[in-house]
Amino acid sequence: MTFSPETRADLGRFWSTLERSAEIGVGRPGGLARLTLTDDDRLMRDQFVQWCEAAGLTVEVDEVGSIFARRDGTDNSLPPILIGSHLDTQINGGRFDGIAGVLAGLELVRCLNDAGHVTRRPLVIVNWTNEEGARFSPPMVASGAFVGKYAVDWVHDLIADDGPRFGDELARIGYHGTRPCKAGEIDAYFELHIEQGPILDAEGRQVGVVTGGYPSHGMRVRFDGQTAHTGPTPMDLRHNALIAGARWLTAVDDIGWDFAVGDGKATGSRLTAWPNKPGILSDTAQAVADVRHPDPVTARVMGEKMRRALFASAAMAGCTAEIEDEWFWGGDIFDRALVDGIRDQAIRMGFDWRDIRSQAGHDAYHLAMHCPTAMIFTPCKGGITHNNAESCEPEDFLAGLNILLHAVVTRADR
Amino acid sequence: MTFSPETRADLGRFWSTLERSAEIGVGRPGGLARLTLTDDDRLMRDQFVQWCEAAGLTVEVDEVGSIFARRDGTDNSLPPILIGSHLDTQINGGRFDGIAGVLAGLELVRCLNDAGHVTRRPLVIVNWTNEEGARFSPPMVASGAFVGKYAVDWVHDLIADDGPRFGDELARIGYHGTRPCKAGEIDAYFELHIEQGPILDAEGRQVGVVTGGYPSHGMRVRFDGQTAHTGPTPMDLRHNALIAGARWLTAVDDIGWDFAVGDGKATGSRLTAWPNKPGILSDTAQAVADVRHPDPVTARVMGEKMRRALFASAAMAGCTAEIEDEWFWGGDIFDRALVDGIRDQAIRMGFDWRDIRSQAGHDAYHLAMHCPTAMIFTPCKGGITHNNAESCEPEDFLAGLNILLHAVVTRADR
Repeated sequence: MTFSPETRADLGRFWSTLERSAEIGVGRPGGLARLTLTDDDRLMRDQFVQWCEAAGLTVEVDEVGSIFARRDGTDNSLPPILIGSHLDTQINGGRFDGIAGVLAGLELVRCLNDAGHVTRRPLVIVNWTNEEGARFSPPMVASGAFVGKYAVDWVHDLIADDGPRFGDELARIGYHGTRPCKAGEIDAYFELHIEQGPILDAEGRQVGVVTGGYPSHGMRVRFDGQTAHTGPTPMDLRHNALIAGARWLTAVDDIGWDFAVGDGKATGSRLTAWPNKPGILSDTAQAVADVRHPDPVTARVMGEKMRRALFASAAMAGCTAEIEDEWFWGGDIFDRALVDGIRDQAIRMGFDWRDIRSQAGHDAYHLAMHCPTAMIFTPCKGGITHNNAESCEPEDFLAGLNILLHAVVTRADR
Repeated sequence: MTFSPETRADLGRFWSTLERSAEIGVGRPGGLARLTLTDDDRLMRDQFVQWCEAAGLTVEVDEVGSIFARRDGTDNSLPPILIGSHLDTQINGGRFDGIAGVLAGLELVRCLNDAGHVTRRPLVIVNWTNEEGARFSPPMVASGAFVGKYAVDWVHDLIADDGPRFGDELARIGYHGTRPCKAGEIDAYFELHIEQGPILDAEGRQVGVVTGGYPSHGMRVRFDGQTAHTGPTPMDLRHNALIAGARWLTAVDDIGWDFAVGDGKATGSRLTAWPNKPGILSDTAQAVADVRHPDPVTARVMGEKMRRALFASAAMAGCTAEIEDEWFWGGDIFDRALVDGIRDQAIRMGFDWRDIRSQAGHDAYHLAMHCPTAMIFTPCKGGITHNNAESCEPEDFLAGLNILLHAVVTRADR
């Protein structure tokens, strides 16, 4: 058996790896709660490493715990092609989000092994640490460090919602690696991911050719006020940071509705306050929100409205506001030649495809800052994700897997 | 030395007990964080019991941990007079809120001891468990159980914000008493408390004769939605319980401003959500809010607006809402004869007094459901409370202490 344009991935074998993954870090019925750098994350990492080594790959772990499984090419002086995603999940996560992308890389390698084909350029399958940000904020932190956006020390000092330090948890689960967290020269990065939106499923498409991401603007903010009694304190003498936060998240939600025609979205996802107890006004609060829109100008307007609403909300509650962290992503960031290569394979193999834009953030956004990058989206039922009801059938991956296989090999062999 | 209309409390001795209390459960600078049923609460209780026993009182602890320190009368067949408040504080609490009322009872007993006077009716100094509700919700739970509003088992099963069960914490600190939690016949209940509002201080008054409380209506509610991705989920398919909660607290705050002329207040004091993390919409949230107004009809209107805003806010976020708990307090609940007796003493001793209404909740509200009850308010600087900046001078207690002394003895000796 040799590698040819007719070679196809083994859907059953790929699915069996997803089923094994779904046994590790079981969450609500049907879902996963495999938070980054937990014991379950370690179990899954161990399983992945075992599969990679069995497939003849050389495994390295970098300083922030990302796993790199390398398959040499015929010319190892050439920069490698990376294929990856993440094995961690949300606290009420599904079985496919991220996981499918890592295991698609593994299936690709297994196909090449079966075919006895060695690509010209080396291939590296990657599991990025903490894509979800469900335990350590911000999300996509390891891919960010990889491309130089975050310093390794800064990542190590992140504190989990449940207390421990990122660096300590890395060491505890045995994934504090020594490979320098530094991208070096990379020929291309491919990431397959479930769409996490309803479009492919609603249109009955087999695959999405991802042309870019919705321009997005998010921020983590802090409000400062003053504790006082909830009863006798007159309204005009109050400095209730919880109300500042509630007003801001309400205003952000209003922005989402104002721009919903045109597919804008705005989300308040987190609000904490202290003391946050009956009988007392809170003196501090933290909140996280973001806005997204397919049109960059509109996204900018939404972001500016979110920022102004921040200070207006704080003022209405007699508090001060401060932006602690702010991020922008999305736009037309993917590589034209890579995207065309993916679309070409979809056409050649006769799949029902469409161009699509990502609305979620992905490690690919960070990689795109550094090297030619592209993504492939596969359908998921109703677009439901970050929920234990996230659902895919093996056939949902047929097009995506085979397109990934041939797009990567074509690129690697050129 | 005998007891006479000229007898006066020892302000320095009273202040020294406040200073000792301020050493136990130290919080932010100048303040206390002596949460109920913690180790610090135990230390303070032990100190209080030691003082009571040294003053010749008989100490009993009831099934919910309230401490009753009894001084027999000359006719112990008569129902006792209770004088009390609470020794627990908010998490950013002051040194006087509640504490002054308990220690005023102790000073009263010490005065009577000095004068060698035994009242006709017995006197009981009370420390009510968990007035603040800063660790176990609801507040004022032990006085509520005392008058039959809450069942003892229900109180024991309350869960602290930090995890443990009320009954277990009672046992752990050694205050799971055997005295039945049941009021029995009581002649009268007196409670001295700092005003926790700015009125006495602003007007330069020495004391407030509390005629009743602002009618108040509070609720703890729950919102249910669905987790989903913050990015691709269209606005009209979202069920973000955090946003339901944020919208409700915003609406409640608006109600407060709408009725601020006329001295209405509305407070959102607590909002928790799950998962409450970046990247995911929350599927549950809990919130606590209340409204208060001096006019009962207006208070009812504000409460109804709060209730309707609850369901409107949930609907706007695509969630459901449920009222888990609801409470009403305040109104003209204090005993006319007792209030008159307090005012008479203020006039007789020449203090600068005014009638005033309580805006905060107090254990006295529960006692008023059961027996003749009245309160005395003492000034506090700027009305600041539930804050480490809460501040009083010894002289702020001069009028209140002496009025309490003579009002109680007059009542007890009749």
